[in-house]
Amino acid sequence: MINACLLIIGNEILSGRTQDKNLAWIAAQLNETGIKLAEVRVIPDVEATVVGALNECRKNFNYVFTTGGIGPTHDDITSACVAKAFGVAIERNAEAEALLEKHYTREQLNEARLKMAEIPVGASLIYNPVSAAPGFRIENVFVMAGVPRIMQAMFDGIKNELKGGEKTHSRTVAAYVTEGVIAAELTAIAEHFANVDIGSYPFIRNQRLGTTLIARSTDTAALDLAQAELKKMLLSFTDEVVDEDLASA
Amino acid sequence: MINACLLIIGNEILSGRTQDKNLAWIAAQLNETGIKLAEVRVIPDVEATVVGALNECRKNFNYVFTTGGIGPTHDDITSACVAKAFGVAIERNAEAEALLEKHYTREQLNEARLKMAEIPVGASLIYNPVSAAPGFRIENVFVMAGVPRIMQAMFDGIKNELKGGEKTHSRTVAAYVTEGVIAAELTAIAEHFANVDIGSYPFIRNQRLGTTLIARSTDTAALDLAQAELKKMLLSFTDEVVDEDLASA
Repeated sequence: MINACLLIIGNEILSGRTQDKNLAWIAAQLNETGIKLAEVRVIPDVEATVVGALNECRKNFNYVFTTGGIGPTHDDITSACVAKAFGVAIERNAEAEALLEKHYTREQLNEARLKMAEIPVGASLIYNPVSAAPGFRIENVFVMAGVPRIMQAMFDGIKNELKGGEKTHSRTVAAYVTEGVIAAELTAIAEHFANVDIGSYPFIRNQRLGTTLIARSTDTAALDLAQAELKKMLLSFTDEVVDEDLASA
Repeated sequence: MINACLLIIGNEILSGRTQDKNLAWIAAQLNETGIKLAEVRVIPDVEATVVGALNECRKNFNYVFTTGGIGPTHDDITSACVAKAFGVAIERNAEAEALLEKHYTREQLNEARLKMAEIPVGASLIYNPVSAAPGFRIENVFVMAGVPRIMQAMFDGIKNELKGGEKTHSRTVAAYVTEGVIAAELTAIAEHFANVDIGSYPFIRNQRLGTTLIARSTDTAALDLAQAELKKMLLSFTDEVVDEDLASA
């Protein structure tokens, strides 16, 4: 199983000021590529913390993606931290500078904006079709913007560089039966299908309590069998079972 | 500075199926108490990962809060992981059992639901006024439900057990000027106010680009001065400066 870690870098996420929207989008994209998002860390704009997390995660996961901290202001420290983590210099990248020169007028392209062309030595650029200032890749670490629209455009550009394993598929069943009622039977099914990961998620919908069961596996045959068993099990408690995720209120 | 780490435990967050709503709420509550949320980790329902993260974080932070994984089903492994991390047994807690007995009929209170009364030895209960099944506290680790309504009710009950430091206050100014334009002046202000943390957040609103600046500090006098400087700086670029967060599109 190829896995990945996402580092969400930014005080604004930790303070609760900004609701992260990148985790779910990246998770879905990685899944399409056969890569499992195995951990996410939200960390502050503090050099020692960012460098430490980068070095720990790039060893422990096949891929590391970062979002945030590559803009022109004083609190954008991600690129410098990546250089430090890899023990390389950070320098004005000619290709990145050319991209900024095309995007900005000569007057607009001040020192602060040129900071966005400071890239660790040895990195390759990740293009930004929205606002020019690039991200970059160094070894297994992909450094992207925090703004979702920009991050998504960057990710689209590097998607074909990612080597995934088998894709994880999922099957969903749900019913108006609570977790506590079905738990014993559910455990038996989960134990029977060793290569299927079954998650149980309670919900409240129209004042009725229920449970959504989501089975995930790379083995679609096992998945179909597991779904049939889950459905049969739910039907032993209620007549009304659906194949959709009845989300939590 | 008293700090905290939040461990969001659950495959459903990592797969992108469920959008976390607990981080921002907990961050705001902790801030009210003078505790800084310093890191968040989203980790899967995998014993070794949960135990490892618990042991690392309980040493590195003053408080650790966990959400998720304390229900009745097979994928609810948080309580057992906490016991393992602390090297204590997990056993049927008489007080927790009594709470469940009051909430459920004798017929409803099956073995699966009684699993929710299995609490690490030495822990004290965190009450759940929504659906009875308690969380618990052991040393500096607070174990709570993942469902936001339940987590919030639990947190309200333990808030007065938390010993915070000085509260961090914030001041906001925003204008339709882009980060790249103000970056040099902003850096000078950020460097001048050593005990004020200034964050810069670009936004797009009604097709206009701009920047929100948020200053945070425990020192309200320094904060007022920093806000005035930030405002003066923005007014040197534009006539229209506001004291509100013009959120990103």
